[in-house]
Amino acid sequence: MKQKRFFLQEKELPTQWYNIQADMINKPLPLLNPATKQPLKPEDLYPIFAEELSRQELNQTDRYIDIPEQVQEMYRYYRSTPLVRAYGLEKALDTPAHIYFKNESVSPVGSHKLNSAIAQAYYCKKEGVTNVTTETGAGQWGTALSYAARVFGLEAAVYQVKISYEQKPYRRSMMQVFGAQVTPSPSMSTRAGKDILTVNPNYQGSLGTAISEAVELAQMTPGCKYTLGSVMSHVSLHQTVIGLEAEKQMEMAGEYPDVVIACFGGGSNFGGISFPFMRHNILEGRKTRFVAAEPASCPKLTKGKFEYDFGDETGYTPLLPMFTLGHKFAPANIHAGGLRYHGAGVIVSQLLKDGYMEAVDIEQLDSFKAGCLFARTEGIVPAPESCHAIAATIDEALKCKEAGESKVLLFNLSGHGLMDMSAYDQYLAGNLSNYTYNG
Amino acid sequence: MKQKRFFLQEKELPTQWYNIQADMINKPLPLLNPATKQPLKPEDLYPIFAEELSRQELNQTDRYIDIPEQVQEMYRYYRSTPLVRAYGLEKALDTPAHIYFKNESVSPVGSHKLNSAIAQAYYCKKEGVTNVTTETGAGQWGTALSYAARVFGLEAAVYQVKISYEQKPYRRSMMQVFGAQVTPSPSMSTRAGKDILTVNPNYQGSLGTAISEAVELAQMTPGCKYTLGSVMSHVSLHQTVIGLEAEKQMEMAGEYPDVVIACFGGGSNFGGISFPFMRHNILEGRKTRFVAAEPASCPKLTKGKFEYDFGDETGYTPLLPMFTLGHKFAPANIHAGGLRYHGAGVIVSQLLKDGYMEAVDIEQLDSFKAGCLFARTEGIVPAPESCHAIAATIDEALKCKEAGESKVLLFNLSGHGLMDMSAYDQYLAGNLSNYTYNG
Repeated sequence: MKQKRFFLQEKELPTQWYNIQADMINKPLPLLNPATKQPLKPEDLYPIFAEELSRQELNQTDRYIDIPEQVQEMYRYYRSTPLVRAYGLEKALDTPAHIYFKNESVSPVGSHKLNSAIAQAYYCKKEGVTNVTTETGAGQWGTALSYAARVFGLEAAVYQVKISYEQKPYRRSMMQVFGAQVTPSPSMSTRAGKDILTVNPNYQGSLGTAISEAVELAQMTPGCKYTLGSVMSHVSLHQTVIGLEAEKQMEMAGEYPDVVIACFGGGSNFGGISFPFMRHNILEGRKTRFVAAEPASCPKLTKGKFEYDFGDETGYTPLLPMFTLGHKFAPANIHAGGLRYHGAGVIVSQLLKDGYMEAVDIEQLDSFKAGCLFARTEGIVPAPESCHAIAATIDEALKCKEAGESKVLLFNLSGHGLMDMSAYDQYLAGNLSNYTYNG
Repeated sequence: MKQKRFFLQEKELPTQWYNIQADMINKPLPLLNPATKQPLKPEDLYPIFAEELSRQELNQTDRYIDIPEQVQEMYRYYRSTPLVRAYGLEKALDTPAHIYFKNESVSPVGSHKLNSAIAQAYYCKKEGVTNVTTETGAGQWGTALSYAARVFGLEAAVYQVKISYEQKPYRRSMMQVFGAQVTPSPSMSTRAGKDILTVNPNYQGSLGTAISEAVELAQMTPGCKYTLGSVMSHVSLHQTVIGLEAEKQMEMAGEYPDVVIACFGGGSNFGGISFPFMRHNILEGRKTRFVAAEPASCPKLTKGKFEYDFGDETGYTPLLPMFTLGHKFAPANIHAGGLRYHGAGVIVSQLLKDGYMEAVDIEQLDSFKAGCLFARTEGIVPAPESCHAIAATIDEALKCKEAGESKVLLFNLSGHGLMDMSAYDQYLAGNLSNYTYNG
């Protein structure tokens, strides 16, 4: 009998997150204060983030960080997520490759985002915060934060990128079911939003703009902190539960990945599944490849520059050393809303620079083609973001077929696409197109 | 550490379905040929159903029926589903009751319906069928059948009740992603549909009408068989994997249910979780209670009559001995589309008559109120159908609180409501109402 799915017992679940910064040979460059150009200390981040999260952000020494007991308890609501052998997809591709995916779509809110939302809401609550605010693109992160806020008794205000707010109304509904207040961004409720709408009244929004609005709200509101779903190092830290579990589950399957693949927006999904495996490349000289799949229309890793840039459109954030398309870059209206971000987190940017990982860019039509094949062979409709990882995995599997190699491929199915059916509708009707990146 | 979720290993999964007909003291009355009023033999069903399914339908002797290896293999894609202790809900209710739910919403298509869809598609394929057709209400069954058909290389045509087709467009999209042809019912593509539209051009459809259309298509199309998502005894048979798993999982949790609760449309969801536990009531005199939760606007169990009636609106099916509101009954446009059916399956009808189970009716507003509380405490947005089971469970849990009793309650979370967010939208906006049943 071929085993399809691998689960961990609750007692085998990770009790610590893995902090790759401690093991990196070249540490990420410091975050800078935009006014003074001085490296930031954790205290400089306290006005925006919970204090413990600020310390995690800049922690380059502790390899493992304890997961608080209350966060572990919430993880047990849905973790471990299954590691799945994609026999259906392998058969359809007629490939000798062994394809595995980590199925984060089974989390209650439908994606991996909950792993960090729970941690961020927990620390906020612990430090006496009463309100949290954030941005969301496709709505996966906003949903996760809305639920996590509810669990810990916090009020949540979410700025959702306008194009996604309109494309994916069900995500808004879901946030409201969890009791959050949702505003399409850019909005007239912040200075950042007003300024953008004044120049461009029809602007469809971007994650960069929504971040500006949420940061501004946090700064102006007593008892309110900002939270975010990717980019920052503490978010990737929380997401390492994915890779730490996957490592044990691959062991149960008697295999070790030759290639680890994930879609890439700000880097936390990619880092979450990759870093625990990459640790063995850094420390033991293993040769696993790590492939980040980004949209061809928003190609910060393959076509961006490594430089100091703002994390948001308006320039409220610290200066981050990262691969970026420029913080004023307005991404095309692709359906993978979670990947419509101009920059990459500082850890992944350094790792890309140092050759520990690769990046590929995927066209929108190729991503949906891959997503439909996956749906028909594995039964799960993937999020448009995850479709990018699937497309990259299929490319690798077909290379294996050509070379007659049975490599072990592992990708992260970051979320399901059940809130994105209108995108699939348009794809099946032939109404979607690719978008050229013009620099 | 309190354990939240219980899983079975793949080798512990059921290899046989449980056929409660073999153990029933009063067997269900025979299905009758409407023309001759003679009891049906399996061969009489062959023109509509796959032959093995026809034999399962009328099998009153074999207590256990082997699950074919290929069906078991597909079950391993998503089973066991977790048994979950609803600590969050218990806390919110401040009840001494122990609340468990079997989470069928994690199936790839989002509900328990896949358990029977896989079996039906498998037998059809094995017998040389090339096309399958069916009806669907909310779309949970249609989605499941579309995916199962795809897995076994069958073409699928689905008649979706028009009100649901319009209320839940994402379900239609999902069926189309799986490659099915979807038609709103009543349609002009069948005589049954034409007749209804002639009398009432604005008719919003019902499961009874959609069944007529699908049965007619199957009868008129060579190589095509009809499949269905509930009511018939073979569907409940397949769904017993739920209860068989739950029994072992409750054992892992060290408990046994005092009350088993499920929502009720045609009875297969209810039968699926109940029958394996009810076996011990029948054979060993256990006193577990079984509660079916039906909508107050479609109360066949609490207000219907036990009599011979058709399973569909037009009168194509055999005469079934069941609790029914009459096959011409047009249910109100509640959002729990899967519960908008006039009759109850023959097994559950006999069991209700014989006092082995109870029924309660739930108002639409109470169902959504329960669903929102569940979403906020357990993180999962439940299907409107499942909300009925949750509402009934909450009632039992509050009774326990009043009496100071820590009973063990088990309900089946038959599916998630991610395709039903427009219903939640309307509920939160105060735009939903209850519907009176006027007989």
